[in-house]
Amino acid sequence: MFADILKTIVEETRGGAGAVLMGYDGIAIDQYFKPVEGLDLQLVAVEYANILKDIKRTAEILDSGDMEEVSIRTGRFYVLIRILNDDYFVALTLDRDGNFGKGRYLLMREAPNLRAALE
Amino acid sequence: MFADILKTIVEETRGGAGAVLMGYDGIAIDQYFKPVEGLDLQLVAVEYANILKDIKRTAEILDSGDMEEVSIRTGRFYVLIRILNDDYFVALTLDRDGNFGKGRYLLMREAPNLRAALE
Repeated sequence: MFADILKTIVEETRGGAGAVLMGYDGIAIDQYFKPVEGLDLQLVAVEYANILKDIKRTAEILDSGDMEEVSIRTGRFYVLIRILNDDYFVALTLDRDGNFGKGRYLLMREAPNLRAALE
Repeated sequence: MFADILKTIVEETRGGAGAVLMGYDGIAIDQYFKPVEGLDLQLVAVEYANILKDIKRTAEILDSGDMEEVSIRTGRFYVLIRILNDDYFVALTLDRDGNFGKGRYLLMREAPNLRAALE
């Protein structure tokens, strides 16, 4: 169920490499990954889970509203993260030349479905 | 000099609230802020400087290439960050309904000018 949604997000985004549904504790509920040379996409998500916790806390301290979306572009990848609720987020990794806008759109479109499936 | 570039970025982005040129140590070189009710934009940048350090380190650990760009959307704001070099970044805060794409474009366009001015 989760995996189908994650697969849709990855396959419909040009340059999509993988997507994971994960808790802030770094434990994945489900995932869909294409093989990517020299990068452990699961590990990427775990590492970013910690950073998300910091951003969440910062947004609270600053009273700038709840964190909704985070994106990080590096020399090789885009990591797009959409917050689902207080416990879970979904992260999409795509090639740095992939379709960032489409990825963002799909995460937004599928967020309610993932949220519903979590309940 | 820095302030003129920062002002251009803020004023040319619909919904632009402020921009700051800052070191990872959280010390600002220059800034241009419009008054925003209930939010200290300088403090926002300082708080995010710490998070950027974590993301930078994570990107290095994962060998996923140098961090180039980070964006964070909360219930009230977008914070768009562009890395200039190993010591400095530029952060643009805009209204969450502002023109995200234009903001990203302007940060990209002005990054070489800021980098040149830093040297």
